[in-house]
Amino acid sequence: MRTSLSEQLGIEHAVFGFTPFPAVAAAISRAGGFGVLGAVRYRAPGRLARDLEWMQGHTGGMPYGVDVVMPARRAEAATEDEVEALIPAAHRRFVRETLARYGVPELPEGDRGSWRITGWLEEVARAQLDVVFDHPVRLVANALGSPPADVIERAHTHGALVAALAGSARHARRHAEAGCDLVVAQGYEAGGHTGEIATMVLTPEIVQAVAPVPVLAAGGIGSGEQIAAGLALGAEGVWLGSIWLTTEEAGLRSAALTAKLLAAGSGDTVRSRALTGKPARQLRTAWTDAWDDPASPGPLPMPLQGLLVAEALSRIQRYEVTELLGTPVGQIVGRMDSVRSVAAVFDELTAGFERAVRRINRMVERGC
Amino acid sequence: MRTSLSEQLGIEHAVFGFTPFPAVAAAISRAGGFGVLGAVRYRAPGRLARDLEWMQGHTGGMPYGVDVVMPARRAEAATEDEVEALIPAAHRRFVRETLARYGVPELPEGDRGSWRITGWLEEVARAQLDVVFDHPVRLVANALGSPPADVIERAHTHGALVAALAGSARHARRHAEAGCDLVVAQGYEAGGHTGEIATMVLTPEIVQAVAPVPVLAAGGIGSGEQIAAGLALGAEGVWLGSIWLTTEEAGLRSAALTAKLLAAGSGDTVRSRALTGKPARQLRTAWTDAWDDPASPGPLPMPLQGLLVAEALSRIQRYEVTELLGTPVGQIVGRMDSVRSVAAVFDELTAGFERAVRRINRMVERGC
Repeated sequence: MRTSLSEQLGIEHAVFGFTPFPAVAAAISRAGGFGVLGAVRYRAPGRLARDLEWMQGHTGGMPYGVDVVMPARRAEAATEDEVEALIPAAHRRFVRETLARYGVPELPEGDRGSWRITGWLEEVARAQLDVVFDHPVRLVANALGSPPADVIERAHTHGALVAALAGSARHARRHAEAGCDLVVAQGYEAGGHTGEIATMVLTPEIVQAVAPVPVLAAGGIGSGEQIAAGLALGAEGVWLGSIWLTTEEAGLRSAALTAKLLAAGSGDTVRSRALTGKPARQLRTAWTDAWDDPASPGPLPMPLQGLLVAEALSRIQRYEVTELLGTPVGQIVGRMDSVRSVAAVFDELTAGFERAVRRINRMVERGC
Repeated sequence: MRTSLSEQLGIEHAVFGFTPFPAVAAAISRAGGFGVLGAVRYRAPGRLARDLEWMQGHTGGMPYGVDVVMPARRAEAATEDEVEALIPAAHRRFVRETLARYGVPELPEGDRGSWRITGWLEEVARAQLDVVFDHPVRLVANALGSPPADVIERAHTHGALVAALAGSARHARRHAEAGCDLVVAQGYEAGGHTGEIATMVLTPEIVQAVAPVPVLAAGGIGSGEQIAAGLALGAEGVWLGSIWLTTEEAGLRSAALTAKLLAAGSGDTVRSRALTGKPARQLRTAWTDAWDDPASPGPLPMPLQGLLVAEALSRIQRYEVTELLGTPVGQIVGRMDSVRSVAAVFDELTAGFERAVRRINRMVERGC
């Protein structure tokens, strides 16, 4: 799985692994891929610094990257408290009532909850970037829109490539014009924020739209056969997120959530605005169902929804309220049926890729 | 693009082309693929017989198939008139008002319209099958569920393979257990009836679910690169429907519809129940928007919706009312940007497939 991109980065496989867990990101880089740590859940820059420090010592000298969420446009209200004030009372009531219906306990006094995806507030993302650029990261990815020009310049000065996720050719073109070095074509079947176009159609469309900028195929990729498919579509590499959630290194604090992921089929996800205000694929749960119900006030736009549900999600996770417990994950959750090490996943990816290539070559040879 | 399946059928490429146009189906078989004529729009068995007769003389001796729509479960009301009687007045009014809003003229006296997709009424489908089995068809595909046991037996006696479309591993397993020889894994991005799982995820899932029954990948496939991707995912062949709509042989009677297809991007389709009562991907139009509007009474279940809208769609097509004019088509409509012959499409598919295989092989060789 070598391409000019993997050679440029000095890695063995053009397999980029996105994960919120430093131990997983480090293991991906050690296994020959390229680990990308998702920074969106870090509120305290000190915590991010500590984790990047740790990664630096655990990637075996191999390169790694960081993923931030930074909207190109500024929100009107700039601080978290100002944004909080925009949330309607009816929405707060709906959250309270839904939690009460499932008997979700309150957090202990003084605990605001760890689950705060507020990284897309520009002030938070910029504080994260200050930390990121204190470390020798080789890639900065932006999960939402093109990064601002000064961030791209700063990354390039730092010697890092800049990647941006796109769900349409139009967005991809904007990223390329902004100066991004890589575009991640994120298909409908992906976990997290996705558009409507499936990977099979989106990848070649974006490859054509941004050439010669290299493209990573994302969405629906969790096996070597799917990697071969993504590369056949013209990608220079693949971007995998979901598959790492059930690795040993992920050590999901919640055994109940791991069990739900292992049991889920490909049809058990939903693309819902309940998590962040923008459509994001996630495990379908009683929580997403409640937001889809006609009685729901409907999700708020980003960034309000993320702030609205932050404490609720912390409570659901802390007390492992099974019916409500979810996570962003793609349709490949259907094939996540055992807990394995990152290295074991990589071995399987490599073997599957080679199997797929041999298979395809037989189909050509028969024709000779 | 040779697989054991193409060798079994004696065709050059494991590329199955579904189309409602006999001239396209024949051209696909002549070009080295396997043409499959969609029978669902034929009301009069005599017309179907005439077209199969014609195909027999125009496939250059190569094999071809027919696609019928036959629900495994019988509807309560068996005849078209009995089903018509179940349609609520409010729905008829909504159709009348929507047509009036766009000034769609009435059909001439005595003309019931050609656009009647009533083939899924069992009596209609069975009459079609009587005609089909008068001809040396090599494949009978069922676009909706497993065919009844007696139809499978009849096909096998006739020397024809039986295929069935599936949007989930559960449906695919049911088809295999019923005795189908082939399963078409139809992903979310496909034109026509589709489920929620994208081709990238669905194909390997169905391959695993029904092995050793061969699987055709469908949905999002309109280029040689996409064929390579489908085959890398474990399919023994691919099933393409949309790409033929803008071929010279299709001779879509409506120039306005051809123009809309050529102009449409991958984001210009919608998965809507407005056409048949089950979710089917189609061009997004003012007609599908009207059915998605809060003011709409909502589509009826199959087969009521198809009967409800049949005359309306005939009128829209006959008078080429551009805003309302649509057709089932997949997300690959974005790459349909010129009118070409079926043979030219095939040349491009072959070249793209070879390009993709060479590309993948370079990625392996670099690793050696």
